[in-house]
Amino acid sequence: MARSWWGWGNAEEALNGEEAAALVGRVQLLLPDHDFSVHRAPDPAALNLPAPRVKPPSALAALCSDDPQDRAGHAHGKAFRDVVRNLRGELRHVPDWIARPRDEADLVSLLDWCAEAGIAVVPYGGGSSVVGGVEARIDGPVVTIDLAHLDQVKEVDPVSRAARIQGGVYGPHLEEQLRPHGLTLRHYPQSFQFSTLGGWLATRAGGHFATLYTHIDDLTESLRVVTPTGISESRRLPGSGAGPSHDRLFLGSEGSLGIITEAWMRLQDRPTYRLTASAEFDSFAQAVDATRAIAQSGLHPANCRLLDPAEALMNAGIATGGGVLIIGFESADHPVTAWMNRALELVADHGGRIRDTKHRGAEADTAGGASDSWRSSFLRMPYQRDALAQRSMIAETFETACTWDRFPAFHAAVTSAAQRALDEICGTGVVTCRFTHVYPDGPAPYYGVYAPGRWDGLLAQWDEIKAAVSEAILDNGGTITHHHAVGRDHGPWYERQRSDLFGRALTATKKALDPAGIMNPGVLVDVR
Amino acid sequence: MARSWWGWGNAEEALNGEEAAALVGRVQLLLPDHDFSVHRAPDPAALNLPAPRVKPPSALAALCSDDPQDRAGHAHGKAFRDVVRNLRGELRHVPDWIARPRDEADLVSLLDWCAEAGIAVVPYGGGSSVVGGVEARIDGPVVTIDLAHLDQVKEVDPVSRAARIQGGVYGPHLEEQLRPHGLTLRHYPQSFQFSTLGGWLATRAGGHFATLYTHIDDLTESLRVVTPTGISESRRLPGSGAGPSHDRLFLGSEGSLGIITEAWMRLQDRPTYRLTASAEFDSFAQAVDATRAIAQSGLHPANCRLLDPAEALMNAGIATGGGVLIIGFESADHPVTAWMNRALELVADHGGRIRDTKHRGAEADTAGGASDSWRSSFLRMPYQRDALAQRSMIAETFETACTWDRFPAFHAAVTSAAQRALDEICGTGVVTCRFTHVYPDGPAPYYGVYAPGRWDGLLAQWDEIKAAVSEAILDNGGTITHHHAVGRDHGPWYERQRSDLFGRALTATKKALDPAGIMNPGVLVDVR
Repeated sequence: MARSWWGWGNAEEALNGEEAAALVGRVQLLLPDHDFSVHRAPDPAALNLPAPRVKPPSALAALCSDDPQDRAGHAHGKAFRDVVRNLRGELRHVPDWIARPRDEADLVSLLDWCAEAGIAVVPYGGGSSVVGGVEARIDGPVVTIDLAHLDQVKEVDPVSRAARIQGGVYGPHLEEQLRPHGLTLRHYPQSFQFSTLGGWLATRAGGHFATLYTHIDDLTESLRVVTPTGISESRRLPGSGAGPSHDRLFLGSEGSLGIITEAWMRLQDRPTYRLTASAEFDSFAQAVDATRAIAQSGLHPANCRLLDPAEALMNAGIATGGGVLIIGFESADHPVTAWMNRALELVADHGGRIRDTKHRGAEADTAGGASDSWRSSFLRMPYQRDALAQRSMIAETFETACTWDRFPAFHAAVTSAAQRALDEICGTGVVTCRFTHVYPDGPAPYYGVYAPGRWDGLLAQWDEIKAAVSEAILDNGGTITHHHAVGRDHGPWYERQRSDLFGRALTATKKALDPAGIMNPGVLVDVR
Repeated sequence: MARSWWGWGNAEEALNGEEAAALVGRVQLLLPDHDFSVHRAPDPAALNLPAPRVKPPSALAALCSDDPQDRAGHAHGKAFRDVVRNLRGELRHVPDWIARPRDEADLVSLLDWCAEAGIAVVPYGGGSSVVGGVEARIDGPVVTIDLAHLDQVKEVDPVSRAARIQGGVYGPHLEEQLRPHGLTLRHYPQSFQFSTLGGWLATRAGGHFATLYTHIDDLTESLRVVTPTGISESRRLPGSGAGPSHDRLFLGSEGSLGIITEAWMRLQDRPTYRLTASAEFDSFAQAVDATRAIAQSGLHPANCRLLDPAEALMNAGIATGGGVLIIGFESADHPVTAWMNRALELVADHGGRIRDTKHRGAEADTAGGASDSWRSSFLRMPYQRDALAQRSMIAETFETACTWDRFPAFHAAVTSAAQRALDEICGTGVVTCRFTHVYPDGPAPYYGVYAPGRWDGLLAQWDEIKAAVSEAILDNGGTITHHHAVGRDHGPWYERQRSDLFGRALTATKKALDPAGIMNPGVLVDVR
């Protein structure tokens, strides 16, 4: 199937006419006056992209493409603001070349060329960044390095349950290669189908597990990173206390120091025991308390997602006064009944009513239950977002984390800042909230905003909303990102969030490993 | 009680005559020809320490001590080689002053003075380093900054279960301040009584939990660090994906970048449900397999310590062919019977025989059972080590981690390197092994070595053994330290273990935050 150059995922998997009509029909009930005219993406060949400003050395020419669709498709990530700009044909910074190294030696040669010629390098995995992570907003020449050919599981260690895996492998192909070994990474971000291991590592992606192993960081045993000044490889270790963590410097470095070509990843046995349940609440405050009790219980559920009433209604079709909590336990070792029973006691202690409980098979989900309807909706969300964007609707998310003590005031401040921005900028709109991950000391809330926009001002409208909400997040003790990374869109708030000294440390590190400042310039630190 | 200037802990808690006689009696059975003459530490006043080479500015004079016992007591950590040198009165690098800031402002003033005057600073918590971490081996002037007065829990957040705690607080005093809130850090390294929170953080200490929260790193919510170029403070967050981790740069920095003055730490409710069991095995390989099965089960025991036959005999008084596994579960939320039952099934599946199972109270341990006899022995070990060192016996440990697939070959190589070194250097000796922590992808083995030395060559003998074992650890894929830090003693192997590029990144960071290179010079990176 062919990838969409302008929107999410595969072109053929976009909403079909019937689905789009149904979606529009639902929204139209709420917004009868909105202009639902459909805007279609231009043909990349008609964009008249400027010719590449540099020429690869002949030895590398075969790795490099200047095909207009290839270049246009790599110009932006997949945030709402990216999709809108693509639909409008507004591609200001298109990479000059898309280079696809076949192996690490090719990659080293490409970096050598770019460092010598002063060409900016954008490392590219699946391109699913929603923070401007793959878009070099500079005037000079840019080569985007697409790691798609580095897609192999090179070695499996079944005893330690770990594998050496190349950074360019996409989620489904990774799992396919692990399956014969009975092993799985079990890292399923919403982007799973269209993102890569290297991208997850470089951006500290959040995955399947709602507790404990929330970020890919915790599943990482060692990393191999190609930088402009050489290759860094850490030792495979289950744990170490030898100096500051080697790998934690590169986890979250977002391509600004180098490119992760291989990692030894910690794997799981494929779960055979799975229980899921959902519960509803009359008050969101009680639902939050129940979720906190579970997060602090030491039960470590694999899933523990709280949907607020708006989220439950819009994305799981459930009407409640206080929200829905979805809980899941899984194990390859033991039945999880005792775990679930205790979690449901905690739910009941906090006024929750059990809606359904379900044994799940080891494999794909079967139909039925609140968690299933939410999950299938979850995977279709980005396609729906595209269909809405085509119809001048703002549909976007932002995510963060804060401590439990702060959450009530934080949530009130963030939702009211968002609602106020939607009302002022769009006249109306809806703000939803769910917890994607929970920790003993706080939740990771994920907000959705939906509002009617104007086609000609859509980007500016969204940017204004985003800025208002980001201010509220920073002012109230949150993080500008829990698992979407910083990229370029979060840069101003990230700089405020981190300490000056840590910024200086990162800058010094960047200058040491990337003295020419070619690696993903504008991300995290800018040394140009 | 007064601290021993030359040995472990409190002078009054050292082995009394009766205990020492019993210990010597046991060893004498094995080593009838050894010279057990007792060597006593010199009086620090008789050491004729050189006068301080610098003079603190008058505003700081009241914070600084040049008392000989104070200076001698801060010259070394508490490794075997430190104790031996103290006993022999060999104190080559004694700090000129011991400075005790009353607050952060004092600390900033002290660093300003040292940076201006080019005086090396050794940050000092409890001084329990076993890797030369508090001993500046340089010829220039040195001020040791003892954080003992920064010993307060400043704020408690019972909702998020976290507290803001000053870095200089010792373990018992920390727990004492948390107790009224029903909370506990539950970080109990062997040094608990004589080490501080700031020291644990700076060295990535390993603690109570044998799985999951093995290092203090995982219990850290945010850090406040005073460096020569300013103060860095990270935001309190339960999780974040905004750039490389802020805190992970300072965790394990061992005072080479700055001094941790405060941390928000994640706490636990005091456990009310506790179950402990022990099992014995006929073969160590089976015992290792059982331990691995539990580590990979997702049961997450709080305790999961495997003692090899020599360790079980020497330190728990249990004779087995294959070793003893001690398992413990604890919870403040739920009975842990289901967890323990499954762990014991795994033990039985791997040929283990249950020795005892026990419910434990919420508080201090009661007598009885393999785990209790091992635990009380565990806390007395450093005092016994001192008594043995006084009698020309080598008694020391080294610890590491490796992946499960490598462990059999690793263990054979390390134990045979150690045994060979003992045989060649001392004529005989015993090597023991236990696992202090276990991960899904590998164990953290901890080795003990015991051998008869010669008083006049004791240090050289040990250094030769240590080098031989460290080579075997590095060559066979281990880490030079899992939770004892790098300090100065592990430096040469640490440099080989880390990648050159990571070393360059650390050096660049050090130059940015500590341009005069005054912070704990010789540790991790040396920029002088």
